[in-house]
Amino acid sequence: MPTYTAPTRDARFVVNEMLDLTSYGNLPGFENATPDMIDTVVNEAGKFCSEVLAPINQIGDQQGCTRHEDGSVTTPDGFKEAYQAYVESGWGTLAKSEEFGGQGLPHVLGFVVEEFTATANQAFGMYPGLTNGASAAIEAAGSQEQKETYLPKMISGEWSGTMNLTEPHCGTDLGMIRTKAEPNGDGSYKITGTKIFISAGEHDLTSNIIHLVLAKTPGAPDSSKGISLFIVPKFILDENGEPGERNGVSCGSIEEKMGIHGNATCVLNYDGATGYMVGEENKGLAAMFVMMNAARLGVGLQGLAQAEVSYQNAVTYALDRRQGRALTGPADTDAQADPIFVHPDVRRMLMDAKVFNEGMRALILWGALQVDLTHKAQTEEERQLADDLIGLMTPVIKGYGTDKGYDIANNMQQVYGGHGYVSEWGMEQFVRDSRIAMIYEGTNGVQAMDLCGRKLASKGGRAVQAFFKMIDDEIASAKEDEALKDVAEKLEKALGEQKAATMWFMQNAMANPNHLGAGAHHYMHIMGIVTLGFFWLKMAKVASATLAAGTEDKAFYEAKMTSAAYYAERFLPDAGALRRKLEAGSDNMMALTEDAFATAA
Amino acid sequence: MPTYTAPTRDARFVVNEMLDLTSYGNLPGFENATPDMIDTVVNEAGKFCSEVLAPINQIGDQQGCTRHEDGSVTTPDGFKEAYQAYVESGWGTLAKSEEFGGQGLPHVLGFVVEEFTATANQAFGMYPGLTNGASAAIEAAGSQEQKETYLPKMISGEWSGTMNLTEPHCGTDLGMIRTKAEPNGDGSYKITGTKIFISAGEHDLTSNIIHLVLAKTPGAPDSSKGISLFIVPKFILDENGEPGERNGVSCGSIEEKMGIHGNATCVLNYDGATGYMVGEENKGLAAMFVMMNAARLGVGLQGLAQAEVSYQNAVTYALDRRQGRALTGPADTDAQADPIFVHPDVRRMLMDAKVFNEGMRALILWGALQVDLTHKAQTEEERQLADDLIGLMTPVIKGYGTDKGYDIANNMQQVYGGHGYVSEWGMEQFVRDSRIAMIYEGTNGVQAMDLCGRKLASKGGRAVQAFFKMIDDEIASAKEDEALKDVAEKLEKALGEQKAATMWFMQNAMANPNHLGAGAHHYMHIMGIVTLGFFWLKMAKVASATLAAGTEDKAFYEAKMTSAAYYAERFLPDAGALRRKLEAGSDNMMALTEDAFATAA
Repeated sequence: MPTYTAPTRDARFVVNEMLDLTSYGNLPGFENATPDMIDTVVNEAGKFCSEVLAPINQIGDQQGCTRHEDGSVTTPDGFKEAYQAYVESGWGTLAKSEEFGGQGLPHVLGFVVEEFTATANQAFGMYPGLTNGASAAIEAAGSQEQKETYLPKMISGEWSGTMNLTEPHCGTDLGMIRTKAEPNGDGSYKITGTKIFISAGEHDLTSNIIHLVLAKTPGAPDSSKGISLFIVPKFILDENGEPGERNGVSCGSIEEKMGIHGNATCVLNYDGATGYMVGEENKGLAAMFVMMNAARLGVGLQGLAQAEVSYQNAVTYALDRRQGRALTGPADTDAQADPIFVHPDVRRMLMDAKVFNEGMRALILWGALQVDLTHKAQTEEERQLADDLIGLMTPVIKGYGTDKGYDIANNMQQVYGGHGYVSEWGMEQFVRDSRIAMIYEGTNGVQAMDLCGRKLASKGGRAVQAFFKMIDDEIASAKEDEALKDVAEKLEKALGEQKAATMWFMQNAMANPNHLGAGAHHYMHIMGIVTLGFFWLKMAKVASATLAAGTEDKAFYEAKMTSAAYYAERFLPDAGALRRKLEAGSDNMMALTEDAFATAA
Repeated sequence: MPTYTAPTRDARFVVNEMLDLTSYGNLPGFENATPDMIDTVVNEAGKFCSEVLAPINQIGDQQGCTRHEDGSVTTPDGFKEAYQAYVESGWGTLAKSEEFGGQGLPHVLGFVVEEFTATANQAFGMYPGLTNGASAAIEAAGSQEQKETYLPKMISGEWSGTMNLTEPHCGTDLGMIRTKAEPNGDGSYKITGTKIFISAGEHDLTSNIIHLVLAKTPGAPDSSKGISLFIVPKFILDENGEPGERNGVSCGSIEEKMGIHGNATCVLNYDGATGYMVGEENKGLAAMFVMMNAARLGVGLQGLAQAEVSYQNAVTYALDRRQGRALTGPADTDAQADPIFVHPDVRRMLMDAKVFNEGMRALILWGALQVDLTHKAQTEEERQLADDLIGLMTPVIKGYGTDKGYDIANNMQQVYGGHGYVSEWGMEQFVRDSRIAMIYEGTNGVQAMDLCGRKLASKGGRAVQAFFKMIDDEIASAKEDEALKDVAEKLEKALGEQKAATMWFMQNAMANPNHLGAGAHHYMHIMGIVTLGFFWLKMAKVASATLAAGTEDKAFYEAKMTSAAYYAERFLPDAGALRRKLEAGSDNMMALTEDAFATAA
């Protein structure tokens, strides 16, 4: 069975050293995030995830969720107990509003725990993960009464939440939804329709489930401008705010799917269920985007998560499994063969994983800091910068992070050879589980269009200019340092490719927007590659300074320096190739008609 | 349920027009491959695979194979009837020796049928596929008596075959095998040991199974120089050559695995089973490579197969599913939304699939022709050239073909959005099934080392020089033609990257063989990219000439021209990036010690 050890050392490095979280101690919520507190949270959460959640990951895959004839759903063995322990330990409350029972700590710490949770058991992590998205939407758009009614129990984990967007005929294009919301006359609505692909839609973990549902009121515009958002609790609350009468929403079936079997992906039937509007009528899409953006960062994290757990197991296997001899001569002459760790092609896959995972962790925790700064930074200018940056980076974290995370999980499976394909080793589960992250919360093609069609041009390109400046500044200072110069120069070249690609879009996309669509996926990948390069440069800078100052943990920092160099030489070159593809435009891509794609006999 | 239509038009284009098969009519076996005969084989085989094999592909995945308490194994519903029909129609006999009941036709035609079979139902296709590998080994290394005893019934399909290489502790490193072969004194051997991952190892399709087993005779060298090959029939033949007494080989279990559930992947226990040596003692590895090389081409074909079937279904879905509007304005104003076919990012994925599949088909059928020419070309020089080229290209067909085929299958799943993750749509099965092809018959890392560590340098680099010359010649003539110039120039640039990478290996790998290992995977991909570029140039040349001469099927040839241009602009740029990675060498890749990979707390 695969195992998982939370990468606490690396998380502490990013939080304490690269982000220097304590330097933000003057901001609200940050004052409690002392170095001791950070260490305790990171280490204890790591222990919990490794010891409680990881051991039930494979069981979850094998058993899956079970829907009973009455529409109730049971989760796999051990999930209920683990969820109870998760709630009792309060891991889900770290970064939540103190007003509603949260601990008010920085999101940075919340994301550390979310990473460990998703890595130990992605299917499990989705239950609190969906609650996060739903509670964020209520907090952003709900009335004070709704907040007080629902948030404390959602934040504590006593109740869970879901996000109901997709219908059989529409997912990406939400303007087409058909679920109806008819006024009951008492301020509530009667919700009728069918929602599909509802993660954590029905289960036995909590005493209530708070569904957030997109629906259309009578006469609403027939587009995304006619969507409203509703709270539909599984059990309608009684006068004491406790779950009372069963609401008219039920699980029609559970999807049979490629992976994440431990999470119930439900068809939910709404048969005149009672719902309560969140925010204004026809403004549901904006509220939905609040939960969507939170969810997208969480999904980006899942890309890292499956890459990390599969990497850890592949390292163990590569050190244990013996086949053949090192190309440079036998490494272990006492044995019949060397561990496959000696083979460059195995090491290539492990190093690719290592530098992706550590780079991605740096990016995501930096992203969490931007989420914090958006609300808490001292000046409007700082808040705006953080908001610009995280808005720009969200599709990259989700899209690039999950595309590449899936690649890594596949490579780690490859390290196992034939055993990687066999279920008992667990590697193929990681691949199957990680595959969903490229699809849900907006496919990665949707992410690419969000980045290129919306975020790049928004406010005259203010966000991407800030992004360029941030990296330019880092490069300029690093080039002065002999130890960082080479990485900085390679990053400068890759950043130059991104700038050129940006310019090409500006010069061509107006005349033909298909040029933008044709290059969006490439652009998202260029930006992901450059961004991780930027974080490797930042990490190398910290490592270089620490080594210069002297440290007892020399090996850790030297590994960071080597990894930065490896990232620069093995990941950054793709930026140039991607730019060339992007600059090919859409002409040949869009030239063929339907007939040319038919398989003619 | 997904469907499959055999791409007969494209197969005929490659066979008749690009390869111009009838021009080889003076060679033995080719004289019967008349245009009419080719059309009949292609069309009828296509019909059979689409109508008989494809409909049981999903059932095969869902049911899998069942091992009963007595060790017997039943295949999924419909497999037995389909196999019977396959045998009766003689599809497996096309390219087999007439001496043993085959039809003696070119391998080119055999490969067309093998592609259709693997595409319609990979798990099914593996049963005759493994028989092919086993019978090829007997034909190459067996005694005349062995050939006469086993080949006619294996070629007809009455009996099937397997390849028994892997053991629990060794796969790639076959020198470590422990299965013993002790002489019985009557010329036969007593085989004892455990073999794992034996595809088609036990089943109910045939009246006998002929296992080809690697084992060690007493006192054999403790390395790959001490391996012998044995025939171990499931039922020992009686004096009439019919299956008689049950031999001491049994299926201990079936592996639970990621995909290809319709094929029984067995643990086979040999308990003093009677075996017959094939070829010379301790020369088993050479005989094994005969079956391995045949099998590797077949696996490369599986890369194409899953890319093709997933592509066909993704095209259907993209034309049917409606979400959003074309970036250039609504395409179908009568409907609420446009088919997703209008979105450039969807089209990008479909075009990538189209040009990979058609390019790969051209490569594989050309490869099959080289197999024919190796034996049948008129001059020793031609035979040697064909042998050099197919030896060089086999790891590329297997390694690049399956890496990229898997990518494509994943992209086609992506076209379906959330539905791609749900089992009933069938797309996730294609992904799971195609994943194995990167692993078995030598992982793609092993392919890369076979290419770079063995094939490149073999005979002073004669094969790769011939490969370069073949492409240089094609480029030189194409540059004269205005319609081909651009593709030719882009190919020339990519080929230049491959030549530079080859030179870098020559200059660096001697001093440090890890440099070779560190770049082998990249090199294999550069070569795959260049090779498909070469075939696109060849196809464009045919298309250009046909269009110039006038044709009623103008759209088909124009699509070839567009596709060649698309391939050149979207696939060839990667060669440069891969070369840069390769030239980074192994220093940073190999610098970190075990400790640096440990997840420290």
